[in-house]
Amino acid sequence: MRQWMLLTMLGWAAALSAENTPKATKETLMRRDDEFCAATKERRLEGWMSFFADDATGFPPGRDLVTGKAGLRQMYSKMFDDPEFTITWKPVKADIAASGDIGYTIGVSEINSKDKDGKRVTRKGKYLTVWKKQPDGSWKVAADLGN
Amino acid sequence: MRQWMLLTMLGWAAALSAENTPKATKETLMRRDDEFCAATKERRLEGWMSFFADDATGFPPGRDLVTGKAGLRQMYSKMFDDPEFTITWKPVKADIAASGDIGYTIGVSEINSKDKDGKRVTRKGKYLTVWKKQPDGSWKVAADLGN
Repeated sequence: MRQWMLLTMLGWAAALSAENTPKATKETLMRRDDEFCAATKERRLEGWMSFFADDATGFPPGRDLVTGKAGLRQMYSKMFDDPEFTITWKPVKADIAASGDIGYTIGVSEINSKDKDGKRVTRKGKYLTVWKKQPDGSWKVAADLGN
Repeated sequence: MRQWMLLTMLGWAAALSAENTPKATKETLMRRDDEFCAATKERRLEGWMSFFADDATGFPPGRDLVTGKAGLRQMYSKMFDDPEFTITWKPVKADIAASGDIGYTIGVSEINSKDKDGKRVTRKGKYLTVWKKQPDGSWKVAADLGN
């Protein structure tokens, strides 16, 4: 009998919680990824960093994995230090867990930066971004890698 | 009243379903990633391909995104065509959705391949792999990208 009551309450809790926060969908993540791009265009490093989770992982080329925002800021600030550096992207695909708390976007990017000889180059790329719903309900980047 | 019955039944269904298939954890994905590596070591391209979902996405360097196993096989077969090509890896981190149907692993890899001058090189890398539980209950790779 106790178990039956518990399950009923769990059902109510699930229904109430679903009512208060509409469950995220693939479209939520596509939109969030677009907002990530817009924030980066507008506020550069600060916009970019504002989308990363506190425990996010970065993949600096030729170096060890980086975990946490302090390390990520250090890693990414080099890119944005170049005042002409730009990065824009567009998600083309997303998927999300049934529980609506983890998902990913895949998309295409365009980066304008200096090559190793200091010459400006525009390169097309692709990326995979993992998103995780944070305790405050916001969606942040848990891991982001492009090529 | 009807809604209350529905919620109770939903609670039972959830409990029964959880009983029949133990819910996957981060450790499930770490283990699965190790199995992916072992299968690739043993059966090379066939082992590698056997871990991809039918609708998985690939990120061929300098080319457009690839979706689906036929395209992925074509993309990856070039690597394995080199009989001395090897790839090994080790996951260092994983996370999984509350619903236990989507998750990811992050790890470090070592690739032995030919560089553009045909010289053998061993390169260390890092990767991000998104896993998705398939309708048959198996975990397959939905997207995989390394650098």
